[in-house]
Amino acid sequence: MNSDYEKYKDLLVRLADVQYAATVLNWDQETYMPPKGATHRAQQISTLSGMAHELSTSAGLGEILEKLTLDLTLSEKEKRNVRQSLKNFKTSKKYSTAFVEKMSLCISEAFQAWQKAKAGNNFALYAPSLEKLVGLRREECELLGYTGHPYDALLDQYEPGALTADLTILFADVRSQLVDFVKGIAAMPQNEDAFLHKHYDKQKQWDFGIGLLKQMGYDFEAGRQDLSSHPFTTSFGPLDVRVTTRVSESNLEEMVWSCIHEGGHALYEQGLPASEYGLPSGEYISLGIHESQSRLWENNVGREFAYWKYNFPKLQAFFPESLKGQTAESFFKAINTVRPSLIRTGADELTYHFHILIRFEIEKALIEGSIEVKDLPAIWNDKYKEYLGIDVPTDSEGVLQDIHWSHGSFGYFPTYSLGSFYAAQFYSKALEQIPQLENEIEKGNLKPLHDWLKEKVYRHGKFYSAEELCIQISGEKLNFKYFMSYAQKKYNRLYKFQSETSSV
Amino acid sequence: MNSDYEKYKDLLVRLADVQYAATVLNWDQETYMPPKGATHRAQQISTLSGMAHELSTSAGLGEILEKLTLDLTLSEKEKRNVRQSLKNFKTSKKYSTAFVEKMSLCISEAFQAWQKAKAGNNFALYAPSLEKLVGLRREECELLGYTGHPYDALLDQYEPGALTADLTILFADVRSQLVDFVKGIAAMPQNEDAFLHKHYDKQKQWDFGIGLLKQMGYDFEAGRQDLSSHPFTTSFGPLDVRVTTRVSESNLEEMVWSCIHEGGHALYEQGLPASEYGLPSGEYISLGIHESQSRLWENNVGREFAYWKYNFPKLQAFFPESLKGQTAESFFKAINTVRPSLIRTGADELTYHFHILIRFEIEKALIEGSIEVKDLPAIWNDKYKEYLGIDVPTDSEGVLQDIHWSHGSFGYFPTYSLGSFYAAQFYSKALEQIPQLENEIEKGNLKPLHDWLKEKVYRHGKFYSAEELCIQISGEKLNFKYFMSYAQKKYNRLYKFQSETSSV
Repeated sequence: MNSDYEKYKDLLVRLADVQYAATVLNWDQETYMPPKGATHRAQQISTLSGMAHELSTSAGLGEILEKLTLDLTLSEKEKRNVRQSLKNFKTSKKYSTAFVEKMSLCISEAFQAWQKAKAGNNFALYAPSLEKLVGLRREECELLGYTGHPYDALLDQYEPGALTADLTILFADVRSQLVDFVKGIAAMPQNEDAFLHKHYDKQKQWDFGIGLLKQMGYDFEAGRQDLSSHPFTTSFGPLDVRVTTRVSESNLEEMVWSCIHEGGHALYEQGLPASEYGLPSGEYISLGIHESQSRLWENNVGREFAYWKYNFPKLQAFFPESLKGQTAESFFKAINTVRPSLIRTGADELTYHFHILIRFEIEKALIEGSIEVKDLPAIWNDKYKEYLGIDVPTDSEGVLQDIHWSHGSFGYFPTYSLGSFYAAQFYSKALEQIPQLENEIEKGNLKPLHDWLKEKVYRHGKFYSAEELCIQISGEKLNFKYFMSYAQKKYNRLYKFQSETSSV
Repeated sequence: MNSDYEKYKDLLVRLADVQYAATVLNWDQETYMPPKGATHRAQQISTLSGMAHELSTSAGLGEILEKLTLDLTLSEKEKRNVRQSLKNFKTSKKYSTAFVEKMSLCISEAFQAWQKAKAGNNFALYAPSLEKLVGLRREECELLGYTGHPYDALLDQYEPGALTADLTILFADVRSQLVDFVKGIAAMPQNEDAFLHKHYDKQKQWDFGIGLLKQMGYDFEAGRQDLSSHPFTTSFGPLDVRVTTRVSESNLEEMVWSCIHEGGHALYEQGLPASEYGLPSGEYISLGIHESQSRLWENNVGREFAYWKYNFPKLQAFFPESLKGQTAESFFKAINTVRPSLIRTGADELTYHFHILIRFEIEKALIEGSIEVKDLPAIWNDKYKEYLGIDVPTDSEGVLQDIHWSHGSFGYFPTYSLGSFYAAQFYSKALEQIPQLENEIEKGNLKPLHDWLKEKVYRHGKFYSAEELCIQISGEKLNFKYFMSYAQKKYNRLYKFQSETSSV
């Protein structure tokens, strides 16, 4: 037993305890906290965050990390943990308390301004604080340093190692390949999907969703589902990973796919090694990889025919009235309707990426300083016209629709698309490597897939980088072709662009 | 603005933030946490507790407190805050980390041993760790210091200022006055109360309980009720004060009086001044005063005829079947049945105090070293025979029934009786000072009482000691005669010992 390494572990566990405690307070805030609790709660979370920052930059931690960096007796996993922790330590040290406080204050202001601006459809209310926030984030890029584009410094916080240059190429592919593909689909006769908006009893939806989570392998002994206004997954350690959902009586899709999506995130967190609590080897790799786990279940599994061949009859038994006359096939078609739309969170799995492309282009330009905040509504609307072919009627439904920027999150959006693209790449390998995977799914047996993901992804924690993991699983770096081939296969079949050998 | 005082406030707010955060984690543990979360949760709470201890004993806090002690410009409230904080600081400093860790480990062991011993009705499994725990608590008394009895040092942690000598006199009164009184009641014909154990639908009970809380003035915008295996009240600051209850389908009393009891605790916490968050002036005085607030609502209000004259018809509307043929009067009689029983938590409001008397006598003797842990079952059973006239069939229902000792809580039990006695004393003044109080209660108007308690108790925080508050409200120190006269009046009327002028 290396005593320095043990000391390092103790420090990281302590840090994780404080961070997870703040996460519990956050979860409670989103689920059960009574409204008047908000003020003190914000202060409590801020105090814990401050203490976590102190722990993550303590001289003691710095010394032991420097010492361990020279320790040749460490295992490869231990070395990678130390390397990762040292990177985090150095990054944290770059932030002065004054900067952190200025940023935190600015975010509070921007968030409030955004809420008002969105409610009143008045971008001007938000513009000044957003401008300040963009300024601070640009300052932060300089503080952190970068070699290529300043935006790299922000991307790295969500997707370590991601580069603006690579994303630019990736989104050029999205643009060149997906735009025409979607235009082709839009020209086809549309599927009937109005029945998804009939009346669906809330309690029954809830019960059905719980069943889907169980079927996926979500461990309710190490988690639970609650309601919140925006669905999310949160972890207080791999033995307590919670999901939330929302249930709309007139929109069946909302609950079903938030359950599957959050369930995918939660399986990842539940699958991280509990023995590595607090260490990089016990953490997820990046938001992109995290999102790959939710999207793989949500789309590659949860919007496929095999999944609903098994589950649709169960769903129909819950809602015999509203689903009268429907079949697994008609349901499969309805849930894969492609229709350019205004709001990112409600977008189908193809046009979704145009929403991200637009945000990526805007963020990159804002951070490099080639566009100005005041021009955002016009830029936004132009891009929606260009990529999605739609007019944006109000800023509330346009540039003000997302919460992210008001939280200072620039560089976060691209991870959503990365998640889908990684998911397609990983899933193509799962189909190759798991015998009869689609047949098993048709029988409602999701265990082979879950086991495969445990083996390939979850158990490694952050041992590999996103790129390393991707190569490990698929033999190559992230490649957009997997997503396109997944999309082509599915939509060709759905819209019968081509003659088919397999029957649905 | 005194800048030292502001610094002191900041330090205390920070400490409160960490303590309240640990309390949120505890609340979650008792209400929603999935089972596998237990291990990491215990560790997270322990880390936060350790950090709170560090903050409460920091050199910076010590220095500023010493400085403020000499500051003549402070207001009386500020002076009292500083004095109280200095006392806490000095007490905290007496604990070495080694001692705290030894105690914490010993409690973990004792708690696990107690659970096994209770489940298997085998005191011997628990005795060794209880013996160690008693030893540590005796050590603690020496560490903390005392002038009279060593048990004073423990009492002071729950009921600051309480002395073993005073409690001995008080419980001698309980013994001499209450024993005979209860014997007299036991000789009377018993009330019919079997109907309280008919079937009561859980959801309906829940809804009725929520109504009772609202009626009391509990603010659901600053709190909520959840289920837990043992009802409790918890506060994360006065703007987020939560209660829990448990609901038994075959025991109506459990839910009703846990709602009213916890509601009483919660009104106190919600009534503490939010502007004094983290400071003594924003805290409750003692467990005895806290309990006075719960018992006043539970018994002096919630077991009185006036309260049920208004609420019984509502209750009956919820449960027309199970309450068929009952009246407010028969209900009032049923809920005031006096019947010596084995289990403290299910005891009526009179014999309850014998349970406490027994525990007080045992704790005092254990701490002074005049009895030994191994003899506890025999001593326990003898005392139950002597004071309550009943045979204890098993240790599980006897000496093993309570969780408290396994948590190391010696000196806690007496605060339950103190609560009832303070409640009777305060309520007698409320009856004098609030015009037509009983009439208002009969009309379901509990606001005058709630307002009186806000004025007399809640708003002061810890400005007064328990004794000072009692004198402030009633003109004298705690006096058992108020409880006896309350009991005599109520039970004489109930059992018609004497002719009555007022009719029920």
